[in-house]
Amino acid sequence: MNALRSLFNSVGEPPRYPIEALAAAVREGNFRAIGRAISLVENRAPQHQDFVRLLYVPARQARVVGVTGPPGAGKSTLVAGLAGRLRESGAKVGILAIDPTSSFTGGALLGDRVRMHQLYTDPGVFIRSMATRGAMGGLAPATQDAVDILNAARFDWIIVETVGVGQDEVDVVRSVDTVVLVTLPGLGDDIQAIKAGIMEIADIFVINKADREGVDRTVRDLQMMLGMTEWAGWTPPILKTVASRGEGLEGLVKEADSHRRWLESGNELVQRRRDQLRLRVENILKEKVLNTARRDDGLDSELDRALREGTDPYGIAERLFSGVVAVSTGMPIPQGRSS
Amino acid sequence: MNALRSLFNSVGEPPRYPIEALAAAVREGNFRAIGRAISLVENRAPQHQDFVRLLYVPARQARVVGVTGPPGAGKSTLVAGLAGRLRESGAKVGILAIDPTSSFTGGALLGDRVRMHQLYTDPGVFIRSMATRGAMGGLAPATQDAVDILNAARFDWIIVETVGVGQDEVDVVRSVDTVVLVTLPGLGDDIQAIKAGIMEIADIFVINKADREGVDRTVRDLQMMLGMTEWAGWTPPILKTVASRGEGLEGLVKEADSHRRWLESGNELVQRRRDQLRLRVENILKEKVLNTARRDDGLDSELDRALREGTDPYGIAERLFSGVVAVSTGMPIPQGRSS
Repeated sequence: MNALRSLFNSVGEPPRYPIEALAAAVREGNFRAIGRAISLVENRAPQHQDFVRLLYVPARQARVVGVTGPPGAGKSTLVAGLAGRLRESGAKVGILAIDPTSSFTGGALLGDRVRMHQLYTDPGVFIRSMATRGAMGGLAPATQDAVDILNAARFDWIIVETVGVGQDEVDVVRSVDTVVLVTLPGLGDDIQAIKAGIMEIADIFVINKADREGVDRTVRDLQMMLGMTEWAGWTPPILKTVASRGEGLEGLVKEADSHRRWLESGNELVQRRRDQLRLRVENILKEKVLNTARRDDGLDSELDRALREGTDPYGIAERLFSGVVAVSTGMPIPQGRSS
Repeated sequence: MNALRSLFNSVGEPPRYPIEALAAAVREGNFRAIGRAISLVENRAPQHQDFVRLLYVPARQARVVGVTGPPGAGKSTLVAGLAGRLRESGAKVGILAIDPTSSFTGGALLGDRVRMHQLYTDPGVFIRSMATRGAMGGLAPATQDAVDILNAARFDWIIVETVGVGQDEVDVVRSVDTVVLVTLPGLGDDIQAIKAGIMEIADIFVINKADREGVDRTVRDLQMMLGMTEWAGWTPPILKTVASRGEGLEGLVKEADSHRRWLESGNELVQRRRDQLRLRVENILKEKVLNTARRDDGLDSELDRALREGTDPYGIAERLFSGVVAVSTGMPIPQGRSS
């Protein structure tokens, strides 16, 4: 434990948790403890770093599946159906809903609500929604921490549901092992939007509500788009589901299994984990530098000063960065920083 | 000029520009120089910071308008029409197209192409598309730098066109003075998506293609949504336009003027500029910490080491952060960093 750690623990209000006890309860699979632990990382509370470090398991055992796609594609119903399937084999399933329009967090229709209710009362399923706007914009780091928590609690599968729009959400999707992109027949222009971000990192395509008109055309559109890319080793399959009736879910589980086997067969899983770790560390570094710059109102007083003196943004950033370095080494704060 | 500056200048390959000469040519309004200058900041080339600092004017004189909305709303046509209107009064107009589906960057229909062509040959209009994916994810900083460049080149109006989806793009929208949100009749579910991010920062709503069916309903929907918010001082107007026929553009210019007057009437413009500066400085700080951590492959060798030793991400970030501090102060690199 070095000086830096205590520095970052001192940022913000310190609600003190007995983190060792909380970690022990999480490891035992206590749902209330898990919920409290996720709140800890979601709020980026002072002790969240030490807490995650306590729980962290380098070789994640849980299988983490991301389910992403536009609002209205039926992601929540698909996730509920998938969870139900996985439960049949006795697997423990954790669900993290990032999507603000998720049925898990609100917009469920009557039929969905019944399905959701079954999941909510199942002791083998943990469901949690994550706020899409952290004060620090730390959605991706918080979700990755939450995955670590569920992994420590020995969930076999962790499903992360997200709209997948925005850098923060794309970062979330990049941190799962298998990316399922859900779409629906007759998307039209939406495909354009999908292409822009998530398309290239999807491992499995699902056309949900496949009993609707236009499904064949959507299959062809997707095939055409997939055909334009050179796929190394794994070509994403295109599946048709009607999640509300449970149709096609078995196929989805099968393809998720195949994808997992493919990941493990070569160097792919190792490479993916390395990329994920890199992205995660970079996001933590960004949090760190902002937290340190904001400390003791350093950022605000520097801004006030800059506005008085007409300093350019790079000049301000340079001064603040010197301040970050000074704080971290115990060197005197540069002259004028709090003037 | 301190040690940090030269540090950040040493990141990446150093294509050497005579930045003083380039800055002088930009100030004279030379289009080729402006284009080259924007490439410099877009590539985050080593000298871009010094270059922006040379050009930076604290009290920006240009009026910066952001035009945002979903693909297909006709943003580019609206921007072209708006630019044409502004040209009638002799104003110099700079256009930055961030939107990958923008007509300025590709997807123009025949009619649009003619309009675009007129703009491209007008010596009072500068058009430039910005890449949506920088290697460093520095879209917002690069766009803000480009605005500084156009401001230094004495453009009266700067119009920034963007889809407004994703943290990076929302950051871009947050850096303009007046946000115009373009939508079209019969949006339906899309409104949901708009609500999620941009809605609360829009200053003017435009329903484009207002000759289409469903326009009244879209007006009512927007009115209802606007009615749910308490607006302090400025209530966003809802305008109807048919940009392809030039209809409603006069009203848009008028409302943009009104909004500007409102901004200048109280403390609003000062507050907005402060918020913008804060966001911009924070993004520069994030760039700085990542650039420093990546220096000399520090991040990669630390990742390799962590994967061998099973270090958790917060532990890695802490080590790297110590490394950043060491590099910035000339202290010895922590033991084992490049082992």
